[in-house]
Amino acid sequence: MKKINIGLLGLGNIGTGVYEIIQTNGPKINLSAEKELHIKKILVNNLNKERKVSVSPEVLTTSIDELLKDQEIDIIVELLGGIHPAYEYMKEALISKKHVVTANKAVIATHGRELMKIAIDNNVALRYEASVGGGIPIINTLSKPLSINQFEELMGIVNGTTNYILTQMTDFGLEYDEVLKTAQEKGFAEADPSSDVEGEDAAYKLSILISTAFGLEVSPDNIPREGITKITKDDIEYASQFGYKIKLLATAKKTGNHLEFHVHPTLIPDSHPLASVSNEFNALFLKGNAVDDLMLYGKGAGPLPTGSAVIGDIVEISKIIGTNFDPTISFPENIDQLQLSGEGTSKYYIHFRVEDKPGALGFISTAFGNNGISIETVMQRSRGEKYVPVIYILHNCKREQLNKTFEEITKDETVKEIRSILRVEEF
Amino acid sequence: MKKINIGLLGLGNIGTGVYEIIQTNGPKINLSAEKELHIKKILVNNLNKERKVSVSPEVLTTSIDELLKDQEIDIIVELLGGIHPAYEYMKEALISKKHVVTANKAVIATHGRELMKIAIDNNVALRYEASVGGGIPIINTLSKPLSINQFEELMGIVNGTTNYILTQMTDFGLEYDEVLKTAQEKGFAEADPSSDVEGEDAAYKLSILISTAFGLEVSPDNIPREGITKITKDDIEYASQFGYKIKLLATAKKTGNHLEFHVHPTLIPDSHPLASVSNEFNALFLKGNAVDDLMLYGKGAGPLPTGSAVIGDIVEISKIIGTNFDPTISFPENIDQLQLSGEGTSKYYIHFRVEDKPGALGFISTAFGNNGISIETVMQRSRGEKYVPVIYILHNCKREQLNKTFEEITKDETVKEIRSILRVEEF
Repeated sequence: MKKINIGLLGLGNIGTGVYEIIQTNGPKINLSAEKELHIKKILVNNLNKERKVSVSPEVLTTSIDELLKDQEIDIIVELLGGIHPAYEYMKEALISKKHVVTANKAVIATHGRELMKIAIDNNVALRYEASVGGGIPIINTLSKPLSINQFEELMGIVNGTTNYILTQMTDFGLEYDEVLKTAQEKGFAEADPSSDVEGEDAAYKLSILISTAFGLEVSPDNIPREGITKITKDDIEYASQFGYKIKLLATAKKTGNHLEFHVHPTLIPDSHPLASVSNEFNALFLKGNAVDDLMLYGKGAGPLPTGSAVIGDIVEISKIIGTNFDPTISFPENIDQLQLSGEGTSKYYIHFRVEDKPGALGFISTAFGNNGISIETVMQRSRGEKYVPVIYILHNCKREQLNKTFEEITKDETVKEIRSILRVEEF
Repeated sequence: MKKINIGLLGLGNIGTGVYEIIQTNGPKINLSAEKELHIKKILVNNLNKERKVSVSPEVLTTSIDELLKDQEIDIIVELLGGIHPAYEYMKEALISKKHVVTANKAVIATHGRELMKIAIDNNVALRYEASVGGGIPIINTLSKPLSINQFEELMGIVNGTTNYILTQMTDFGLEYDEVLKTAQEKGFAEADPSSDVEGEDAAYKLSILISTAFGLEVSPDNIPREGITKITKDDIEYASQFGYKIKLLATAKKTGNHLEFHVHPTLIPDSHPLASVSNEFNALFLKGNAVDDLMLYGKGAGPLPTGSAVIGDIVEISKIIGTNFDPTISFPENIDQLQLSGEGTSKYYIHFRVEDKPGALGFISTAFGNNGISIETVMQRSRGEKYVPVIYILHNCKREQLNKTFEEITKDETVKEIRSILRVEEF
């Protein structure tokens, strides 16, 4: 059996997972790869750090050159995270005609096209399954068995931290801040959680999904996004009374020849499979013009699930090594000439705090009507307080129509606050 | 671009779907395949039948030899259904060094190993994605990205007809017979529904899943199975009060070095993602030792979803044609030396009809205890009738322990009837 030499960049969480899986599942992996996989070198920061896995010291190195200049290493597996120096290392590896497997969403979202071109020019593969959805084979499914579909929409719960927080708020009637604190204590949220809770992480992943499914390039910075920091337990409770759960959704949707895309907290009907994606789980729901509705669900993070995706990529590359099968893959061509079009229209859930006096409801409802927005449902809760919550569910409209309405409404003192503006998805 | 010639066996539902998708998504399919796909010949029974798609008459033929003897045809796509003559045609195609794609669960479940060996001997591919779960890329996922996992369990809702019937019974409080009738009128159930409702179809699919995931051969006839014909709306209602939904599950579960497998109606906790798989949808839930919990969900039937899976297979083969990459795939080796072990243990839901008199509950509960079965929950409903329903949820036990208990219990006239014996899954 031919030996495949692997160079690992990083032996943190995911690196340890990869190492562990190759130890426990070695025979099965080698059978799948039809080759013998061998981790030859691992780049680390500190040679003497105590580690969860026992690695012979001569495998560890602090010198990237020991991996990139080693002619025997076939595949570089990048698990450093962050853009620099991961991007430079991957680039150099590809130029040295080494295949690259990465779990790095930031590099793929921002430099994926450039790296893919370098890979093609050097006749090597660049694979990135683990960059979206941890262990769930999302990239493989979109780009292989489902690639013959024209995709109509993708909706992903692609950030485990925010899904954990929203699930805990829902299940235990807690406020955001309380749950965040516990999540941080348990290691489910970072000390600085901003990239997760502000939707940046989800925007990176959505950018990769759009490239993979539609062949369109959209920078993560240009994806309209809103995080979950303003969601209250009241909103979750009202949404539940209307039959919805609140999830942070990364969405890309084709309307005509335009693609709408955004990351937003969204109300999803209880009966929809995405509504049952709880806690740290991730899922991608999609519609293709042949396959129709499809959902992939699983662990979006963690050393072993993410390691499973990384090794899946390594195995696919290993099979090709030594054949004349073209190892390169690239984002598909945008053959439908789809145009990017930002946020698009949506149904909305709006939560106002309103002075409890006659005429308030009529005033707001009239303002919506004047701006061409029709109302699906309204719910007012009078509890004898000065300000009461009023919840509207609005039919499809544009965000600009909403903004114009809010401008008019807030001129009057009747409306104390526009507490929440959330999207609503129907399926 | 190199042309790939395809011979289609059958132009029924799925054949029409395949034809339609190649017409509408042609450019995208050819880009994925990196070849130009061309349907050269289609085997039909009747040349003059009116069809939903417009096919030039010279493409149609009633002679199998026109396809199998055509040196230009690279791939035979078998969509006839049933074992004969589909099996013979596939065999001959493989011997003629043509790649074969099939949607035929019966042939793959019963002759899959033999055909795969012939494929390997002739250096051609045999692919069968569409044989399980319609459009859901289950086979691809198990045998490619997840193949590096050691699977611990698979649980599938793999029959759309029974899932539709159970969902309608649940949502509208209807009895089995009423829903079956409507399902037949709507075309969701066959005139003779026995293969679906008795669990035979699910057993075929489970046999294929066991081969694909565990490399073990088990004949569909040797899979313990029970259908849904005895499920009553009362059982669905009681299950719901305990927080469960009833689904027909095809299960394979590793315990130690044994594999348990069976098809049974099963109570699933409401919060589990499988519980939200409704109506005609299918899903496969699995646990791998690296990837952990994963679920694939989608349309398990229908011309376009099934056609999507068929074309996915065609495209994978087309990419390989003209390279020296080994096109053959086979079921994995059973490297863990797993043994087949039948039904195994389970939690159970038992529904008795019992005479409403003192001591009845004690009598049954004692009998369970005498046979080493412990009780998790019991619910008795007294409505002033002579016989009342008594529902037990039992902790893990073997079916033989249950049978022995029932033998003892039914000797007494207190127990009028053992109405239902259902399995309960916890996750």
